[in-house]
Amino acid sequence: MTRTVQKYGGSSVATADHIKRVARLVGDRRRAGEEMVVVVSAMGDTTDDLIDLSKQINTRPPAREMDMLLSTGEIVSSALLSMALQADGVDAVSLTGAQAGIRTDAVSGRARISGIQGDRIERELAAGRVVIVAGFQGISDDFDVTTLGRGGSDTTAVALAAGINADRCEIYTDVAGIYTADPRICPSARPLRDIGYEEMLEMASTGARVMHARAVEVGALYGVEIYVKSTFDPSAPGTIIRKETMMEQGNKVRGIAHESRVAKVTLRGVPDRPGIAAKIFEPLAEAGVSVDTIVQNASIERLTDLTFTVAPGDRERALEVVNRLNQELGAAEIVSADDLGTVSIIGTGMASAPGYAARMFRTLFDQQINIDMISTSDIRITCVVAADKVADAVVALHNAFELDRQG
Amino acid sequence: MTRTVQKYGGSSVATADHIKRVARLVGDRRRAGEEMVVVVSAMGDTTDDLIDLSKQINTRPPAREMDMLLSTGEIVSSALLSMALQADGVDAVSLTGAQAGIRTDAVSGRARISGIQGDRIERELAAGRVVIVAGFQGISDDFDVTTLGRGGSDTTAVALAAGINADRCEIYTDVAGIYTADPRICPSARPLRDIGYEEMLEMASTGARVMHARAVEVGALYGVEIYVKSTFDPSAPGTIIRKETMMEQGNKVRGIAHESRVAKVTLRGVPDRPGIAAKIFEPLAEAGVSVDTIVQNASIERLTDLTFTVAPGDRERALEVVNRLNQELGAAEIVSADDLGTVSIIGTGMASAPGYAARMFRTLFDQQINIDMISTSDIRITCVVAADKVADAVVALHNAFELDRQG
Repeated sequence: MTRTVQKYGGSSVATADHIKRVARLVGDRRRAGEEMVVVVSAMGDTTDDLIDLSKQINTRPPAREMDMLLSTGEIVSSALLSMALQADGVDAVSLTGAQAGIRTDAVSGRARISGIQGDRIERELAAGRVVIVAGFQGISDDFDVTTLGRGGSDTTAVALAAGINADRCEIYTDVAGIYTADPRICPSARPLRDIGYEEMLEMASTGARVMHARAVEVGALYGVEIYVKSTFDPSAPGTIIRKETMMEQGNKVRGIAHESRVAKVTLRGVPDRPGIAAKIFEPLAEAGVSVDTIVQNASIERLTDLTFTVAPGDRERALEVVNRLNQELGAAEIVSADDLGTVSIIGTGMASAPGYAARMFRTLFDQQINIDMISTSDIRITCVVAADKVADAVVALHNAFELDRQG
Repeated sequence: MTRTVQKYGGSSVATADHIKRVARLVGDRRRAGEEMVVVVSAMGDTTDDLIDLSKQINTRPPAREMDMLLSTGEIVSSALLSMALQADGVDAVSLTGAQAGIRTDAVSGRARISGIQGDRIERELAAGRVVIVAGFQGISDDFDVTTLGRGGSDTTAVALAAGINADRCEIYTDVAGIYTADPRICPSARPLRDIGYEEMLEMASTGARVMHARAVEVGALYGVEIYVKSTFDPSAPGTIIRKETMMEQGNKVRGIAHESRVAKVTLRGVPDRPGIAAKIFEPLAEAGVSVDTIVQNASIERLTDLTFTVAPGDRERALEVVNRLNQELGAAEIVSADDLGTVSIIGTGMASAPGYAARMFRTLFDQQINIDMISTSDIRITCVVAADKVADAVVALHNAFELDRQG
């Protein structure tokens, strides 16, 4: 019997009608004989609404209570989906993260799954039920509710698929798969048939919102093939995220990712001593600031400039930390801006083939788009550009690397 | 150290500002040195909103999933109250019913508490924290979420008070205590200083919505003195529900309860055989119909009339059951109406003193209020009257029994 784990995101369960639609999709598969485990996110804007409510009460809501609060959104949608299935005559049961045996560490707000205790799920599947699991949440050893961070339902689904040895893991979203670029700003973008875990990780961490990066990591670690499909067009092929299978890629650039808006913080004229990076980035991490790109210029007269980018919402916290540290660091000046964005080209094939960076920079130059910062990995080149140039940059790069053609 | 359990109802935590207000009340008591355990209901209309949502998805939502769904409302308000306390510098922790050790049987939607496993609460109290417990819910032996039925948060609070040996149990609501009658329809109604468990049970089960009947039962069973107070005027004395302490009541009638609207179902001309009542009321109970008053007239020529009242929302289900049963019962006619209400006089003193029933009937007669049905217990006399006469009846009886004077 095929055992399938599916995950439906917030936009797929936004209203009662959406939930009924998902119930029909799940019910069809169950009636066709598959064992179904379905992970759901909170309905539509529920999570944001709960966050707003918490901020009215406590401007810095404690993370443990935030987890308790936010976990309810997914419980609501899982109970409702179970009701919808039962209305269609399909036996079903909803489980909280705790009931589903999603064990995590105790790091509130961004807990990591430590293991899956699958016996309750196995029992319910053996009884012929569709098992609905509230995504995004788990339970710590102290029996405290934890959440996995934004987009954590993807991680729940992939980890469950690994934990209960599912044959398939399907992530349903409101788009038809992983696109070569964001189709909202690049009309010629098309869904990729498949993409490697590493490429997907770079896509996810540089702005492609379809798939949560941690879910891809778990998929890579346990070899779970992840099918990304559209709830609104489930018969379309979608994208499979899996180990790179093609010996040679026809096109070495697989996709263009972007972030519409990032902030940067620059420390100018920092006396260049060993350990300076650790002195800055450890306290930032402790303050919960997630740093993306880091660029440190070559030292001139033992003074260096150091720039890093963060999400716009983290800029103030980052500045707080850096200003506090500067007594010790001795930077001449600390400046920041938040009118920036990023554009990245991604593809495992690039590592072994020269000239991609040059073509990227030339393309941006031809469009008169100034490059503020550059950062690279083996399979990714990212340029920081003005926020109002991001869309132009994506379209130009998509054309330059011929991503509208089947790769 | 005084250990206090408090419960705040939905109207006391309806908005972020309400929750902050409750946090100040709780924080003051904590700072004064009390150990505080606080049970909260869902915010305002949350529970009704969730029920509406479920009905859009499944007209007969399965009870287990309904429990899962509704339990989230109380989790939300408990997390928010904990955040509000921490914003005020008061250490606090929110617990779900499961985390608080509220063990119940597995009867979804109207579970009964089987015991309190108080170790987590004790640990948190020992650590100096205010413990916020999501009301209305518990956990079955199968680790399924259960709910205690409407108003179950009162029961949570009283059971917790008994289970952790609290010194005080305070139920906060939007009124200043238990009134001699509903002050919205009887302006001269006043809060009682105290009332016995049995009297309170009769008040609760005949329409006084302030206190959940099951909570009073638990209070009576474990001897928990229950203080009913107003969130909006916490310094007012409120009402203590406790064992009858006065040897002789000055006034034998303590209060007037009413229900604005009830439905009745009458089976006319039922062949009077033994066991007929069981044949009707067991299937009604199985169908989840809660029957209030039952009247069976004396048999005439071995034919009897049997009438019972139910909540208006249960009328159709009751008729379904009775019509199905009638093949066997053989009633000549089944009729129903829902334009009725009830009015009751209540007081333990009545049992030992004659004339109360007569005075009640005379009062209603003087107001030209027709009595449709009568039912009595040791400490209560209930009359079913036309729905549009209920308010007049309450006011007239409140005057007749001089309840505006301190008893």
